Amino acid sequence: MGTDNAPAEDVRGAVEALNDPARGANPFDLILVGRAQEIERELGRHSGADRSRITVVDAPDVIGMGDEPAQAVRTRRESSIVKGITLHADGGADAFVSAGNTGAVMTASTLILGRIKGIARPTIASQFPSANGFCIVADVGANVDTKPRNLYEFALMTSIYAEQIFGLANPSVGLLNVGEEEGKGDDRAVQAYDMLKRSRLNFVGNVEGRDILKGTARVVICDGFTGNIVLKFAESVPGFLRSKLSAQASGFMTRLRLGVARGVLRNVFREMDYQEYGGVPLLGVNGVSIIGHGGSTAKAVKNMIFKADEMVRKGVNLKIMEMLAGEEPEAS
Amino acid sequence: MGTDNAPAEDVRGAVEALNDPARGANPFDLILVGRAQEIERELGRHSGADRSRITVVDAPDVIGMGDEPAQAVRTRRESSIVKGITLHADGGADAFVSAGNTGAVMTASTLILGRIKGIARPTIASQFPSANGFCIVADVGANVDTKPRNLYEFALMTSIYAEQIFGLANPSVGLLNVGEEEGKGDDRAVQAYDMLKRSRLNFVGNVEGRDILKGTARVVICDGFTGNIVLKFAESVPGFLRSKLSAQASGFMTRLRLGVARGVLRNVFREMDYQEYGGVPLLGVNGVSIIGHGGSTAKAVKNMIFKADEMVRKGVNLKIMEMLAGEEPEAS
Repeated sequence: MGTDNAPAEDVRGAVEALNDPARGANPFDLILVGRAQEIERELGRHSGADRSRITVVDAPDVIGMGDEPAQAVRTRRESSIVKGITLHADGGADAFVSAGNTGAVMTASTLILGRIKGIARPTIASQFPSANGFCIVADVGANVDTKPRNLYEFALMTSIYAEQIFGLANPSVGLLNVGEEEGKGDDRAVQAYDMLKRSRLNFVGNVEGRDILKGTARVVICDGFTGNIVLKFAESVPGFLRSKLSAQASGFMTRLRLGVARGVLRNVFREMDYQEYGGVPLLGVNGVSIIGHGGSTAKAVKNMIFKADEMVRKGVNLKIMEMLAGEEPEAS
Repeated sequence: MGTDNAPAEDVRGAVEALNDPARGANPFDLILVGRAQEIERELGRHSGADRSRITVVDAPDVIGMGDEPAQAVRTRRESSIVKGITLHADGGADAFVSAGNTGAVMTASTLILGRIKGIARPTIASQFPSANGFCIVADVGANVDTKPRNLYEFALMTSIYAEQIFGLANPSVGLLNVGEEEGKGDDRAVQAYDMLKRSRLNFVGNVEGRDILKGTARVVICDGFTGNIVLKFAESVPGFLRSKLSAQASGFMTRLRLGVARGVLRNVFREMDYQEYGGVPLLGVNGVSIIGHGGSTAKAVKNMIFKADEMVRKGVNLKIMEMLAGEEPEAS
């Protein structure tokens, strides 16, 4: 309910997810949690909505994008975020998806679903394009003040996520750092390096900022502060280039050349577009919680639902628990 | 001596700097420190070299790009880096310029020149392109394990650098963080925010990763770990886009379109090219020490020399001392 175009885009995305021909017959049902009247009104606009697969649960309160997450989660029991995650925790749903207030979804998921045993801090892993496909970077903002042990946990969870969801067997893991040599960086990086080196993960050592787009490692691990800065920087690159190209426009021939350049760039930028791949899971909670961008379109919402479905079917959390049981370096 | 094409590119850059017509008559003389025989051989290749303005000082030892900085500086007294900076510290030169081992130049500058009184940690400020011109980000790698007080010092020094060298009066200063609101981020960011708010700098609050290219603030302050990652990520963007564009090439028409796209992008990427603006100063040391990229061409070397000249003429260090004397929030 708290997104830029809620609930119109969200409901449309839900209907499109149910009707997607590529997904076969009846792969999942949906529960739409929010202001029931508004949701029903939107559903009424989609004649193709299969109501036998849709349940509407009324949640009269809305946590806005500007609301302080911890306080909102504590006090707004009738909000769609709190009510939806509670439904998931109580077994009434297999997964939860929201493009609303990111902090509130993270906080509510962690508090209400709880954490997987052995995981101190959940993480958000995000996809970057790279020279050889893509690179998955974690943490991109679930944590500030990260400890070395947290970085190890991020690496473990993100490796499994990359393997199960992206089909990358035994993915290479790099530690984002200011230099390649062992011993580089701050104390946190040095200690995390040591834990990763002794783990059963496919650790390839330190990687630098340039290695994300190069694709030196499939999985890149960093603290949530640095990861968030790099993610938002990367997301701003296409818009920046487009505005720089426009500023060069003068005269018909130049405009023609700019049009060509933009067309060619469009394919490249598509890979960087969050609407394409939808949301990202909060890895490490006892459940499946998919977090989307506040500006999500119906397409992004649809892709978030597919991501949730995949996370459930592929048992990512079970795989994380199995790996934790088999590999436990000393805590730090 | 330790750069990719030393000393050929370095010597050529020096000669070009002396002969640059835009700089007027005799703005500075140069001392070339390194293996004298090799330097003389290179100088012999440039008939236009005005030998009355060039002194060669022999330094038989070379600190390589892979050498451990602290140890190299302590033990390699006859290296061009140690000898050149000592010359500057002893008053035999007004500034020092090197495209060699960055860590060694930083360490030697800090140890031999000393720090400006009131500055605990020197910083490197680097230029990013932005929607409205450029954005100066510090620290981009001189420090890991940064304290809030260090961030305040980076802001003060970089503001003066932006004002004196880039002509930006009272430049806006943003603190790089994971959100815009006061109170966001880790403890370091929260405390630095407080110090900056109470300072006489033109502090505009927290800025996010996307704000660098947007140009929300002229000066952006962060710890050296995060800054280094973002800088190297940004430097990798042009190469990544070029390789993605090439991968799209198939058929004559497409190749033609790609050629057009590349031509249009070239202007944009030029702003991101370190060869264009040469090196960056290590701000906060008692002297002028300009650090360049190991792959510097003659053009980059020339621009580094110009930067050094400007730093001396505009008295950036004096301005930093004046501002420190006038504004001293409690240390933290």
